[in-house]
Amino acid sequence: MNNRLKRLVNEFPRYRNIDALIITQDVNIYYLTDFPTSESWLLVTPQKVFYITDFRYIQEAREGLKGIALIKQQTQCLAATLFELAKTYKIKRLGFDERHTSVACLKKLKGYCPRRTKLVPANGVVESLREVKDEGEITIIRQCLEVHAKALEMLKKVVKPGQTERQVLSFLEGFIKKEGVKFSFSPIIASGPNSAYPHAKVGDRILKNNEPLLIDIGIDIKGYKSDLTRNFFLGRMTPRYKQVFVATALAQKEAIGLIKPGVKVADVDTHARKVLRRFGLARYFGHSLGHGVGLEIHENPRLSVKSPAILEEGMIVTVEPGVYIPGQFGVRVEDMVLVTKQGCEVLSGNYY
Amino acid sequence: MNNRLKRLVNEFPRYRNIDALIITQDVNIYYLTDFPTSESWLLVTPQKVFYITDFRYIQEAREGLKGIALIKQQTQCLAATLFELAKTYKIKRLGFDERHTSVACLKKLKGYCPRRTKLVPANGVVESLREVKDEGEITIIRQCLEVHAKALEMLKKVVKPGQTERQVLSFLEGFIKKEGVKFSFSPIIASGPNSAYPHAKVGDRILKNNEPLLIDIGIDIKGYKSDLTRNFFLGRMTPRYKQVFVATALAQKEAIGLIKPGVKVADVDTHARKVLRRFGLARYFGHSLGHGVGLEIHENPRLSVKSPAILEEGMIVTVEPGVYIPGQFGVRVEDMVLVTKQGCEVLSGNYY
Repeated sequence: MNNRLKRLVNEFPRYRNIDALIITQDVNIYYLTDFPTSESWLLVTPQKVFYITDFRYIQEAREGLKGIALIKQQTQCLAATLFELAKTYKIKRLGFDERHTSVACLKKLKGYCPRRTKLVPANGVVESLREVKDEGEITIIRQCLEVHAKALEMLKKVVKPGQTERQVLSFLEGFIKKEGVKFSFSPIIASGPNSAYPHAKVGDRILKNNEPLLIDIGIDIKGYKSDLTRNFFLGRMTPRYKQVFVATALAQKEAIGLIKPGVKVADVDTHARKVLRRFGLARYFGHSLGHGVGLEIHENPRLSVKSPAILEEGMIVTVEPGVYIPGQFGVRVEDMVLVTKQGCEVLSGNYY
Repeated sequence: MNNRLKRLVNEFPRYRNIDALIITQDVNIYYLTDFPTSESWLLVTPQKVFYITDFRYIQEAREGLKGIALIKQQTQCLAATLFELAKTYKIKRLGFDERHTSVACLKKLKGYCPRRTKLVPANGVVESLREVKDEGEITIIRQCLEVHAKALEMLKKVVKPGQTERQVLSFLEGFIKKEGVKFSFSPIIASGPNSAYPHAKVGDRILKNNEPLLIDIGIDIKGYKSDLTRNFFLGRMTPRYKQVFVATALAQKEAIGLIKPGVKVADVDTHARKVLRRFGLARYFGHSLGHGVGLEIHENPRLSVKSPAILEEGMIVTVEPGVYIPGQFGVRVEDMVLVTKQGCEVLSGNYY
């Protein structure tokens, strides 16, 4: 059993004392096994770990999965196979994640569940482990950010007024291909008033002089991700834009200044809002301040007033206040920050 | 209210007499509104339709959605906003899909649900409408297949022994970009023994002479999809490969011969298996015979012995028997078939 699986099992007592956990999310299985997967389940017990899959994936699993028992689904469905194991290994309290289990799936599970096994809600067990990154993970995310910085440097050189948003996208696509990496999400390339849409789609709009160009992209290496927003400006900034940009950047800077282990994420979010309020801009800031980044582009902790989370060493979060003025423009200043022992490190600090 | 929404409302009495339906799946909302969406909900009542979204998407929705009431989420969550509407419009039996609703989400919904509203399981209401394609949908899928045919023609010309699987993928990527379309799923390009993996990943294996090359790709236009598998062979086929290929193609041909309105999908699947059994190959055919294709790459009806579905005019399904001999090779012969009034039309018939 590898370290991550051991840490997972150590969490069982904290989750209503489960004695086994069924994991159905691909990304969680990948985190625990280092094996990219789909349509397969992982059953973790303190003694043994089982990978349940069907004939389509069994051959790859045989070659790629080490130290984990492979179970080929023989009966009609994964659920039936799962509970045969539950019977054999005398599982009493089987944890499942209510957020990753559909109502229909739970009904099916209950239909197959033997009398001696109880299905117990156990939410976010793997996700909470994933919040704190280990050295290996931090290294890969640094790699993502290095490639990301090169992408931004390239854009600075080639992007000109007269091009379309889609052309900017194709510069990026060429770069990605050359570097042998992937996007971590569908890029946002929003020119002029399009920048006022927080989730703008790339379109055929032509970039004009004296206009902002908001670029929110991410690089994916081995499943790990970067996520940064940069605000290019072609030509001369209007005084209004400059004011908004400075206010947003200041809100970010002050928020980052608060980040260290033990701090409530809600306080960091609240502070960024307070800074924007000083400029009369808080009402244009409609989303939360940031989110964890790792194997998923949005993961815990969320930097939100609603979250009870507390920052810990090893967390990597975005800090991204945004001001969106409909019909005019939007500014979002987004960097990635690693929580360190004493405070934090802006991982993307020097990348324009 | 457009035709699809009207047809949807007409289905309500068949689904435990619901008087409203909440739709959370992006693809179903797109089908009903023609508006690409994410993280938003659609509430359909016989009188009125509501699109519930938050500040991030409201502006696009305002411009793109016609004839549907826009509701901006004001409170903490979509669920709270939903049940305010349920109260105002006196909804008594609100349908939800158990397969698209997580256990956690249902708990949340129940927490907000007013006393006079009952949450009623109503599964696959939109999906069942989507099974039968209208003229417009068939036209787009034909377009996907035309582009698909061009891709195959291109491959026939450029693929040579000595290239890697990944190089073949990059030919396809260049083509896709030039044509301005997308892949409908991550391509399968499996050379030699890799073809024995039904869901092989594209790798660095070098294509050799006298070896099979299995190519399973799809084209996406406006969300609609194609899905075909072709078995290239570089050089001379071995007698064993030829025998397996002929048997698989025959199983497909005979199965297609059965397709017409009123036929049970289970009978079509069973027949294909029977043909392969004559050649002693049925045990290598581990998946079902095919599936519906439309806005999703796999949708109903499934051509499976387990399915109770009956074919109807306007359905589009793949017919794809496959024989996978571990360590040796795999063959999958996959075409797309439209169920017509009298029988069927192989939509991809003339494409290599």
